[in-house]
Amino acid sequence: KSFIPVSADCHFPIQNLPYGIFSVAGSSPRVGVAIGDFVCDLSVLADAGVFNGPILGSTKVFHQDALNAFMELGRKAWTEARTTLINVLDSENATVRDNDELRKSAFHLRSSVTMHLPARIGDYTDFYASKEHATNVGIMFRGKENALMPNWLHVPIGYHGRSSSIVVSGTDLKRPCGQTKADDEPTPQYTTCKQLDFELEMAALVGTGNNLGEPITIDNAKNHIFGLVILNDWSARDIQKWEYVPLGPFLGKNFGSTISPWVVTTDALEPFAVASPVQEPTPLPYLKEKSDKNTFDINLSVAIQSPKMDAPKVISNTNLKYMYWTLNQQLAHHTVNGCNMRAGDMLGTGTISGATEDSYGSMLELCWKGTKTVPLGNGEERKFILDGDKVVMSGVCKGDGYNVGFGDCVGTILPAQIIKY
Amino acid sequence: KSFIPVSADCHFPIQNLPYGIFSVAGSSPRVGVAIGDFVCDLSVLADAGVFNGPILGSTKVFHQDALNAFMELGRKAWTEARTTLINVLDSENATVRDNDELRKSAFHLRSSVTMHLPARIGDYTDFYASKEHATNVGIMFRGKENALMPNWLHVPIGYHGRSSSIVVSGTDLKRPCGQTKADDEPTPQYTTCKQLDFELEMAALVGTGNNLGEPITIDNAKNHIFGLVILNDWSARDIQKWEYVPLGPFLGKNFGSTISPWVVTTDALEPFAVASPVQEPTPLPYLKEKSDKNTFDINLSVAIQSPKMDAPKVISNTNLKYMYWTLNQQLAHHTVNGCNMRAGDMLGTGTISGATEDSYGSMLELCWKGTKTVPLGNGEERKFILDGDKVVMSGVCKGDGYNVGFGDCVGTILPAQIIKY
Ligand SMILES: [Ca+2]
Ligand SMILES: [Ca+2]
Ligand SMILES: [Mg+2]
Ligand SMILES: [Mg+2]
Ligand code: NI
Repeated sequence: KSFIPVSADCHFPIQNLPYGIFSVAGSSPRVGVAIGDFVCDLSVLADAGVFNGPILGSTKVFHQDALNAFMELGRKAWTEARTTLINVLDSENATVRDNDELRKSAFHLRSSVTMHLPARIGDYTDFYASKEHATNVGIMFRGKENALMPNWLHVPIGYHGRSSSIVVSGTDLKRPCGQTKADDEPTPQYTTCKQLDFELEMAALVGTGNNLGEPITIDNAKNHIFGLVILNDWSARDIQKWEYVPLGPFLGKNFGSTISPWVVTTDALEPFAVASPVQEPTPLPYLKEKSDKNTFDINLSVAIQSPKMDAPKVISNTNLKYMYWTLNQQLAHHTVNGCNMRAGDMLGTGTISGATEDSYGSMLELCWKGTKTVPLGNGEERKFILDGDKVVMSGVCKGDGYNVGFGDCVGTILPAQIIKY
Repeated sequence: KSFIPVSADCHFPIQNLPYGIFSVAGSSPRVGVAIGDFVCDLSVLADAGVFNGPILGSTKVFHQDALNAFMELGRKAWTEARTTLINVLDSENATVRDNDELRKSAFHLRSSVTMHLPARIGDYTDFYASKEHATNVGIMFRGKENALMPNWLHVPIGYHGRSSSIVVSGTDLKRPCGQTKADDEPTPQYTTCKQLDFELEMAALVGTGNNLGEPITIDNAKNHIFGLVILNDWSARDIQKWEYVPLGPFLGKNFGSTISPWVVTTDALEPFAVASPVQEPTPLPYLKEKSDKNTFDINLSVAIQSPKMDAPKVISNTNLKYMYWTLNQQLAHHTVNGCNMRAGDMLGTGTISGATEDSYGSMLELCWKGTKTVPLGNGEERKFILDGDKVVMSGVCKGDGYNVGFGDCVGTILPAQIIKY
């Protein structure tokens, strides 16, 4: 328990302590942790000598505008920082609690700060690791008989995404324009996207990387992952459909991808570790998990708020634990050929869908390829995302009397700007 | 003509002046230009006050270990730098020529310096812009009737590559391991790549980017491209084959991509501008080139040197001008949905194949899917790249009595390191 008050439903108790990059008016972005309604400025704590361990003794990593330098220090540094913070934020510890000057300069109301991207993301990879999602998409586009591709149960399928257009929660995005072709038209056209969708995902931030040519083994994978965020992998279905054969999604995805600002560490998630689904056939040895607590029990939701609504309406509830391929398997697979990871690289899980219709992670699935609609509760309904719609994703682990949560991952879609060429 | 002697067949006369990042023993990497057998240290010239124009007057961009800061200054700065360099390197100009002290500190033999990646490449995109290559691959895998996908003549097809594993010419790469499945086996296996290939490509470095949501139009595209390099997009065909449906190439490509160290500017290439192939059907207006000099006449070759050979043997000759989709079209397409470019982003052309069998840009095509072999001239032959083989790509524009060249893009394949899982 911290001397900072934390309400029972708050995502950020002392058990969480997620890292993010924030700024206040007139200051440069730096590292903070969220606690209760506050963000604690770690650069101020560092300057005050609060971090006095062997690794972080006179560190400047919390003065940086990205978590990369902190992450690069490795798991021992992450543990040292967490231990220090749990200690000095505890209600029994007077160091910070009774230092009015320090408290005043170190704590800001979260509602008053600007959040930035938590890391410089060098490379962003998006996987396709939910069996339910891959099966749903397969049934819609290829029929029930050939729903899963022959490789899917053997390979954690993934592809490279675009890192430049990753934005932090709260950033509005314009509806994209691009080339689409209607099934009943002979030629394509330049037009605004008519099938704008979200994809509810989570993403792992790589904390420590590997050298080119030296794979991260499945047993070591866990140690390389710093933490997780929520990812909305916005998707323009009509653009994607026309472009994606044979080299995969490109402009249908790279107009913007939104992540939540607070990186919840794997240390904070450890109490919520659970077993991933049984894998049959058994994966190749390089993908075989030795432990049976390979994933996390994280409740995820997605909600829509139209311009006419006062609050977002939840339209789907799912969970990270439904995912077939684990984060460790994704990382082991990604590097099995020697591909090198760098601190800050991001691995998206792919759309997370559950087994039931109310647990699907995209409009494509929730509306089953446009054959039905999602009601918003106020008489409005949706097949895809319309201009002005705000999409709100959230994630939370339910502990005994407390939450470990991710906060929200929010984005609003602005009207397209068509160009006269 | 420069006071630095330049032989007739040299790639780096005063007409070229390509930029690169180099270091000498005991010094940090900085910006240089290649001229004759030398590299000229631009940080030394800058410190000596040689750059005295309005933009570069007291610049520190040449002291950086990447070209990004220089590129971000924009085309006016690029022109100012080029004008200054052509001026002070001219044999009639005494400023540097007769300053022994300055000459001694500014010029190093190219054979004595270490070259580094020319830029921090935030995002790397690989296109598929050669009609001959796409047709060849199509015939091999889908038959003559369906060689080109329905979208190919309308969309400059591309996908995101991996930026972390881009290496500079001269970097050895281990043969990758990974998951493959033989056609006649029921299940996949973890094994070394048996079908290691190169892809002869060129790549454009984006000099100035665009804001998210604000496309670069086809008419402006040219101004955003700083220069070109040669790209060897190494490809593990057996890994790629098993993984690439439906999301595209991933581990088959991201174990390493090699680029040449010298960035030849579009200013230096301007005398070699030529028309790209006629496009039928006419592309959509957002892709329509207004000028008829949209590409460059750059002679490209690929050679192999086995461990038994004393020199590389050229096995293919092709040309950038054969490419169907131009670099401008690639950039306009990439941003039409609002996707943002940053200085240093790299756009690969895709494998560049000509119409004849001796102009194909990959072993896959040269050996027509393993149905024939490529002779190396010493009795050896190849279907794919073997351990110890060095692959040497080169590119040169033939001027009247001079060359504007790229030098070599070289990589040697080391034996795989299989891991016992
Ligand atoms: Ca996705
Ligand atoms: Ca390629
Ligand atoms: Mg996206
Ligand atoms: Mg590559
Ligand atoms: Ni990338």
